Amino acid sequence: MAIDKTAASTADRAPIASSQHRNGSFRFDLLSEDATTWARRGRITTGRGVIETPVFMPVGTQATVKTLHPDEVRATGAQIILANTYHLMLRPGADLIREAGGLHRFMRWDGPILTDSGGFQVFSLANQNTVTERGVTFASHIDGSRWTMTPESVVDLQLAYGSDIMMQLDHVLGLPAEREAIRDATERSSRWLERAIVALRETQPEDSTSVLFGIQQGGMEADLRREHAERLASMDVAGCAVGGLSVGEPKPVMHEMLEESTPLLPRDKPRYLMGVGSPEDLWHGVARGIDMFDCVLPTRLARNNGMFTIDGRITVTNAEWRNVHRPVDETCDCRACTEFTAAYLHHLLRAKEVLGLRLASEHNLRFLARVMEDIRASIVDGTFRERAQAFVDRYRPTSAHVTSPLPAHRNGGGER
Amino acid sequence: MAIDKTAASTADRAPIASSQHRNGSFRFDLLSEDATTWARRGRITTGRGVIETPVFMPVGTQATVKTLHPDEVRATGAQIILANTYHLMLRPGADLIREAGGLHRFMRWDGPILTDSGGFQVFSLANQNTVTERGVTFASHIDGSRWTMTPESVVDLQLAYGSDIMMQLDHVLGLPAEREAIRDATERSSRWLERAIVALRETQPEDSTSVLFGIQQGGMEADLRREHAERLASMDVAGCAVGGLSVGEPKPVMHEMLEESTPLLPRDKPRYLMGVGSPEDLWHGVARGIDMFDCVLPTRLARNNGMFTIDGRITVTNAEWRNVHRPVDETCDCRACTEFTAAYLHHLLRAKEVLGLRLASEHNLRFLARVMEDIRASIVDGTFRERAQAFVDRYRPTSAHVTSPLPAHRNGGGER
Repeated sequence: MAIDKTAASTADRAPIASSQHRNGSFRFDLLSEDATTWARRGRITTGRGVIETPVFMPVGTQATVKTLHPDEVRATGAQIILANTYHLMLRPGADLIREAGGLHRFMRWDGPILTDSGGFQVFSLANQNTVTERGVTFASHIDGSRWTMTPESVVDLQLAYGSDIMMQLDHVLGLPAEREAIRDATERSSRWLERAIVALRETQPEDSTSVLFGIQQGGMEADLRREHAERLASMDVAGCAVGGLSVGEPKPVMHEMLEESTPLLPRDKPRYLMGVGSPEDLWHGVARGIDMFDCVLPTRLARNNGMFTIDGRITVTNAEWRNVHRPVDETCDCRACTEFTAAYLHHLLRAKEVLGLRLASEHNLRFLARVMEDIRASIVDGTFRERAQAFVDRYRPTSAHVTSPLPAHRNGGGER
Repeated sequence: MAIDKTAASTADRAPIASSQHRNGSFRFDLLSEDATTWARRGRITTGRGVIETPVFMPVGTQATVKTLHPDEVRATGAQIILANTYHLMLRPGADLIREAGGLHRFMRWDGPILTDSGGFQVFSLANQNTVTERGVTFASHIDGSRWTMTPESVVDLQLAYGSDIMMQLDHVLGLPAEREAIRDATERSSRWLERAIVALRETQPEDSTSVLFGIQQGGMEADLRREHAERLASMDVAGCAVGGLSVGEPKPVMHEMLEESTPLLPRDKPRYLMGVGSPEDLWHGVARGIDMFDCVLPTRLARNNGMFTIDGRITVTNAEWRNVHRPVDETCDCRACTEFTAAYLHHLLRAKEVLGLRLASEHNLRFLARVMEDIRASIVDGTFRERAQAFVDRYRPTSAHVTSPLPAHRNGGGER
């Protein structure tokens, strides 16, 4: 299932642009750019394997992609997974993971792992959080214990995990917020990135191949987004993330923020849109220059009986699926669709049986992996805009805000 | 993992005793008997494959062995699984399963399936149950809807499922009960069995290879157990089950009831002890002439963080396992033990992650399958008593009632 048909066709072409870190053990190669959008086809090489981009990264918050065995995650076509610094610090603790030989060994995932910094979780999950210039203090959502995270401690935690791609600690604000508060948080995030870079330089073991990504913030203020993108572009990081989007704003606003941001980010580094992952958003994000995505949606949706199809989300526990003795999606090559009927999934999920959650999770991850395969292929063969349009026209989103046109802009630079 | 080392060694020996049903498509061969206990090594042949006995049967109440994919169940060494007539009648309904092409196709298990009759569930789960000579009426535990089960309707349901081994509807009593009430229920169960046999004869399709087992009851009354065993022995059934044990009585009482019952059951038919499945009970049951067992314990225990080890049950979420960076059981060949550490299982189960339930379930099923492999091998090589004693001496049960000696009796008949 995990075969990427686009890999071979771009392998022998000289990259349009490249960057490398940690003596070349981490590398990004820009392989192809779309002529009518900002969509780009690239390849990230890490110490633990290659990632064809654009890529969707399944989320394994607590050192497990919910309900799935790592072999199953791999079989959906996943090339890299996420884990969460905040959650793992609280439970089971960084020392335990270090003792276990790192996160890869602990959870038995031998591919690349990206670890979130915890900046977002501190504001969304923890209580009583207080930000000072030094860092952030907060109460654990599990037991109320007090913790502090600093830019330096977050680097240390991620080194303990053995993360392949580390994220800086950023100052995340709840929205709406005053423009001055947003500017303040944005500037603090930049200072914290500088400190993270220094901490990493001073403490990273010789044989570690971990690299650091910075995070652009700026709320929904176009000029702050631009300013912060320019500042981030000047920093010594391996990749650039766009944070603080998909937090409840209308989709056209998110798309506008992306259009303000990505053209200012370095062309030769990967760009990662944090927390975004509905099928239509993947097409829209790639069209605006994004290379990497993550989201809990596919697995969370599965736990709510939801499954992706080419026509939109369906709720398989609805009565209409009771007697459907064929797969949920006959074009899908996941185990749920090749081995079982919709009627059986309907039964399992109605009866609250775990196998139902597993199969729906596998399906949703496989669905997004196939979307990314289509995206990569269409960038290479010049059909990206057409296929993106066909997808968003057909896919029935659940939110009224979803329908935003593809970007009008033509890709500024780069030959094809 | 599922290779049975004892299969080859007994394959070419002429059976000591045999019985067959449905034109030989169902067959039991008694292959070997222990010299110092009632333990027996046999083989059941069904339309869907061979079952080496003694055997433990994992339970898939709602058409799924909880948390596991059918391939995983098979990989633990399972040769046959159970499903439940009562649960499947209520949800998704027998018509739906018939429409889906039967239970095997619906749940994608191509091995044999035994279906419980629902007699026990009507008394343990349903409400407002009323028994008449005709059958039992009750209210669904799911939505309170009214249902009736008769000996005939239960045969019909099981034919709809396509069950390989069908169980008769029996009249199950809550204990303690008056001796006369027990006798009455026992006699009614015999009459219901006669009706089930007639119903099956009249309605079974030509190409169906399903067979029917009768159930012996009799509470904790030795003479009623004997009477009912003798009556059951005279009936035209493919196998004999012992019901109504392991319902809270002290283990020595259960063992006594078995010792009163099994010697009176036909030597050439399989004997099935219903609802029993703790590791020590498997050795004790086999020592008293039982060939088949089922129990929800391995999967239910897993959902309570419990795992079997050769030294007894452990609770892997206990603090002592937090830092154990080796498998829970280093001698075990299941995925939990070959791929992950106890520390990782501890973390997953503490964090309520589904993968933890899955791995613990696989381990517990594999543990019981290995116990049965040991039992089968030891009967053949004449070391059964010795290995049973070694097992029960070492295994630390959770119940004070568990420690009962192995039977003093020598096996009555049969050469070795």
